[in-house]
Amino acid sequence: MPDAELLETFPTPATTPFVIEHVAEEFTSLCPKTGQPDFGRVIVRYCPAASCVELKSLKLYLHSYRDEGAFYESLTNTIRDDLAAALSPSWLQVVTEWRPRGGIHSRLIATTGDIPAEWARG
Amino acid sequence: MPDAELLETFPTPATTPFVIEHVAEEFTSLCPKTGQPDFGRVIVRYCPAASCVELKSLKLYLHSYRDEGAFYESLTNTIRDDLAAALSPSWLQVVTEWRPRGGIHSRLIATTGDIPAEWARG
Amino acid sequence: MPDAELLETFPTPATTPFVIEHVAEEFTSLCPKTGQPDFGRVIVRYCPAASCVELKSLKLYLHSYRDEGAFYESLTNTIRDDLAAALSPSWLQVVTEWRPRGGIHSRLIATTGDIPAEWARG
Amino acid sequence: MPDAELLETFPTPATTPFVIEHVAEEFTSLCPKTGQPDFGRVIVRYCPAASCVELKSLKLYLHSYRDEGAFYESLTNTIRDDLAAALSPSWLQVVTEWRPRGGIHSRLIATTGDIPAEWARG
Amino acid sequence: MPDAELLETFPTPATTPFVIEHVAEEFTSLCPKTGQPDFGRVIVRYCPAASCVELKSLKLYLHSYRDEGAFYESLTNTIRDDLAAALSPSWLQVVTEWRPRGGIHSRLIATTGDIPAEWARG
Amino acid sequence: MPDAELLETFPTPATTPFVIEHVAEEFTSLCPKTGQPDFGRVIVRYCPAASCVELKSLKLYLHSYRDEGAFYESLTNTIRDDLAAALSPSWLQVVTEWRPRGGIHSRLIATTGDIPAEWARG
Amino acid sequence: MPDAELLETFPTPATTPFVIEHVAEEFTSLCPKTGQPDFGRVIVRYCPAASCVELKSLKLYLHSYRDEGAFYESLTNTIRDDLAAALSPSWLQVVTEWRPRGGIHSRLIATTGDIPAEWARG
Amino acid sequence: MPDAELLETFPTPATTPFVIEHVAEEFTSLCPKTGQPDFGRVIVRYCPAASCVELKSLKLYLHSYRDEGAFYESLTNTIRDDLAAALSPSWLQVVTEWRPRGGIHSRLIATTGDIPAEWARG
Amino acid sequence: MPDAELLETFPTPATTPFVIEHVAEEFTSLCPKTGQPDFGRVIVRYCPAASCVELKSLKLYLHSYRDEGAFYESLTNTIRDDLAAALSPSWLQVVTEWRPRGGIHSRLIATTGDIPAEWARG
Amino acid sequence: MPDAELLETFPTPATTPFVIEHVAEEFTSLCPKTGQPDFGRVIVRYCPAASCVELKSLKLYLHSYRDEGAFYESLTNTIRDDLAAALSPSWLQVVTEWRPRGGIHSRLIATTGDIPAEWARG
Repeated sequence: MPDAELLETFPTPATTPFVIEHVAEEFTSLCPKTGQPDFGRVIVRYCPAASCVELKSLKLYLHSYRDEGAFYESLTNTIRDDLAAALSPSWLQVVTEWRPRGGIHSRLIATTGDIPAEWARG
Repeated sequence: MPDAELLETFPTPATTPFVIEHVAEEFTSLCPKTGQPDFGRVIVRYCPAASCVELKSLKLYLHSYRDEGAFYESLTNTIRDDLAAALSPSWLQVVTEWRPRGGIHSRLIATTGDIPAEWARG
Repeated sequence: MPDAELLETFPTPATTPFVIEHVAEEFTSLCPKTGQPDFGRVIVRYCPAASCVELKSLKLYLHSYRDEGAFYESLTNTIRDDLAAALSPSWLQVVTEWRPRGGIHSRLIATTGDIPAEWARG
Repeated sequence: MPDAELLETFPTPATTPFVIEHVAEEFTSLCPKTGQPDFGRVIVRYCPAASCVELKSLKLYLHSYRDEGAFYESLTNTIRDDLAAALSPSWLQVVTEWRPRGGIHSRLIATTGDIPAEWARG
Repeated sequence: MPDAELLETFPTPATTPFVIEHVAEEFTSLCPKTGQPDFGRVIVRYCPAASCVELKSLKLYLHSYRDEGAFYESLTNTIRDDLAAALSPSWLQVVTEWRPRGGIHSRLIATTGDIPAEWARG
Repeated sequence: MPDAELLETFPTPATTPFVIEHVAEEFTSLCPKTGQPDFGRVIVRYCPAASCVELKSLKLYLHSYRDEGAFYESLTNTIRDDLAAALSPSWLQVVTEWRPRGGIHSRLIATTGDIPAEWARG
Repeated sequence: MPDAELLETFPTPATTPFVIEHVAEEFTSLCPKTGQPDFGRVIVRYCPAASCVELKSLKLYLHSYRDEGAFYESLTNTIRDDLAAALSPSWLQVVTEWRPRGGIHSRLIATTGDIPAEWARG
Repeated sequence: MPDAELLETFPTPATTPFVIEHVAEEFTSLCPKTGQPDFGRVIVRYCPAASCVELKSLKLYLHSYRDEGAFYESLTNTIRDDLAAALSPSWLQVVTEWRPRGGIHSRLIATTGDIPAEWARG
Repeated sequence: MPDAELLETFPTPATTPFVIEHVAEEFTSLCPKTGQPDFGRVIVRYCPAASCVELKSLKLYLHSYRDEGAFYESLTNTIRDDLAAALSPSWLQVVTEWRPRGGIHSRLIATTGDIPAEWARG
Repeated sequence: MPDAELLETFPTPATTPFVIEHVAEEFTSLCPKTGQPDFGRVIVRYCPAASCVELKSLKLYLHSYRDEGAFYESLTNTIRDDLAAALSPSWLQVVTEWRPRGGIHSRLIATTGDIPAEWARG
């Protein structure tokens, strides 16, 4: 069961803004209708305010979806909301990209805050 | 026969805007003049307001065109209209891309609403 | 002999604007100076107002250039004008791309109306 | 010897603006210092006002540089000037790209008039 | 142990602004939680004011992280801060790109000062 | 020893602005600290005012660095300054790109004057 | 109408064996059932005995199929037979590759004589 | 006029066999029927017995075809024969590859002697 | 001046055969006719018997050609012979690949001994 | 210090032969002459007889080279020998590929036993 408690944070080491991108290539959850596994990629990009997410805890948090049945839409927004609650970042974007199901492949983008100039140009 | 009743929706799980893209690589309908099969790709992109389309129902809806004779233009707009009616999204774009017929390959784009910044930059 | 009468149209199935691209990979005409065949690609992009061009009629119209001797410049503008007359579109662009002759390969672009935002971003 | 007299023109077949690109992949002239052959590509892009250049005459004009010793800079501007004089176009761009000499490869761009929107977007 | 003392500088040889990019493809440090090695790429881009970093000293400085346990976030900001302190540049950007850990690969961008036009267009 | 006297110029053959790019793929100098050879690419782009650089003299000028020990930063600015002094161009950009040393590969950009629109769009 | 009389030959200039490949990218004929145009590529490879085919005559011979209705299979073998009759080569291979019709694209290979070692290894 | 006298040789510097490949990307001759220029690439591969061809003399020899009207077949065999006469190599292969004429591009291979194992495997 | 004395060796660390490939991307020598610099890549592949070449000494040995005027053929065989004398390998192959001169780029292969099965298949 | 004791094995689960390839992209050791770090890739391929190597133990074994000064040749053979001793495989191949040092990049291949047909064809 997805567990936001798994997310651990640490204080951001810098007072100047910076940008972090984590790309999780190995994500699996269950289709809420058929119970069959879904596979995809989860991309987390953010500009920290006071806190950063610890990488292993992010991995364990994403792994906690393994036995969870969830629609793409719900899951993408839940990850965005859990990370936003844990980090209170100045900007956060969660992208999920899914392998085809029934001949259809999907991509979802959920954001909070404004994209920083560093990201757009970096 | 295309059947918009097949489209099932569920309430959007987020109050903040987000963007969804479904790419159906396997689409077939019939040429209304010759009765021969056409093959193509259907791309659905939208920013939900209150509802999302359930993925399996989208697949079944697209499959319902299998025995339908329809011009590309009509078909692309019908899919756009059926999805817009079912979802009332803040933005929706339907793109159809077709394999060559008589040495001509075609692409059509039907849109409603304004493209959100998340899509253009995401 | 090119014959604009071959172009058949049907009423646009939508009241909202949309964009159509047809790419004819197999086009041949004759060089007006030598009588030797030219080969190229013809791309038709338009935003319909009241009418769409029927695809098979477009193919036959383009095939009617098979025995026509015409300069690239004249031919590109004639196709643009014939389609504009038949469709009265809000935007139309005809691009012709030609295989090399004497070591020179050519591309021509003729337009009428303003490029719609859907095309530029789509 | 380069001979602008070789350039033949014909009246532009359209009253609406359009864009033409000719890419000559086979160009050779002589180095004015060593007499050794240079090889390159010549690209001609223009928006005609009243006249278009006939393609075979353009080929013969470019071939007339075969025994001419000329610096890249002079040659590029001469082609631009000869075409501008023959065509009085609303926009004209000549690009020459040269195979390496002494480990150095070069590219030159000479323009007259403003780039039309059709080209930038087409 | 990372040692900013290793950074050697020399006076910038020009009074006009210019841009320097160093890409270190071979970087390794230790995970602060597991002690296992991390591997990545470090990119340093800057516009010097009065000083430039000497290349071999930059290499030795980056190698001084070999036995250091540090979070990506801390390490990226420390490199940015050490270089900013040593160089007082008008612009500085440090990008770190990391090989996958637990199926997640990461990228971080820390900047100080405004991106100069030379870089964006160069 | 680098020798700006090697640079020969000739009057620009055109009164209208144009752009020239020379890419020297074969450049070598010596590391000022170790005496070992460095290898790289030198790109010269400029918009001439009254003078152009003769290509063979540019080659010989660049070859005059073969036995010169120089930092990248100094060398890039010296080439920019020598060419600017010889040509008084309206715009000049020198880019040097270096093969890796100690696992680090570098790129430097030195400019004088404003980038002309012909280059950005050409 | 295909006309083998168009093929002109000249005596092979060498007493030692050699191999020739001509690739005609621009070929069109008519479908014998529908009368609609087919488009394809014709590759001719041979090892001459006493005669070679003159290139322009080969072009005109291939163009003579422009108004001919012929099955791929018949056409490929006719070209092979016409060339074999005209040239009496020690080896001859004709390959035709066709653009898709009804979603099917085709390739045919007709040969006479043994493939020479020069071709297989060259 | 092609001039085999231009070919200069020097004694092979090794008693053990080795293989040499020269690829001349810039070759031009004239069509013997139309007088128009042909452009192509000439590849020379050989295993020397007692003599090697000097590179600049090979360049000048190939340039001596600039004003020569010759069929591809004759030209390829003449180059093979001239080099074989000058070098008496244990193996020699001349490949000519030509830019398209009338939509047809050609490749010719003329060989003497047996391909050495070093080439096939190296 | 090329100096085989620079080559240092050490005893092969294994009694079982193995294969070593060194690719030197940065090689320069002088043209013996013009004195102008040549640039190329040198590949050394061998199967050691009793000795291996030390890598830094190989670098210095190759750098010793920097001021040497030598034909490609002589240089390739000299490197082969110097390495064969220093190493007495069971197999050795030297490949040199050169940047274009006068539009011609060259490749030479000099070998001694038989290619081991490990190399061909590995 | 490299420590073959770190290698753990488990009985091969099959009586029929099979092939295993492990590619370690993150490998670093020290140059025995300069003490500076080397970086490379280690590929282990084998056909097990009675034992397989446990993957995490292979990682730790390879990491034990982090502070070891060793020539490429010695290191490659030691890994081959340590694995051969631990596994007694019917075939084993160790390939090391190294990032450039002094402009030279290297690859070494050490093998024991005969390459199985499964690998050559797989």
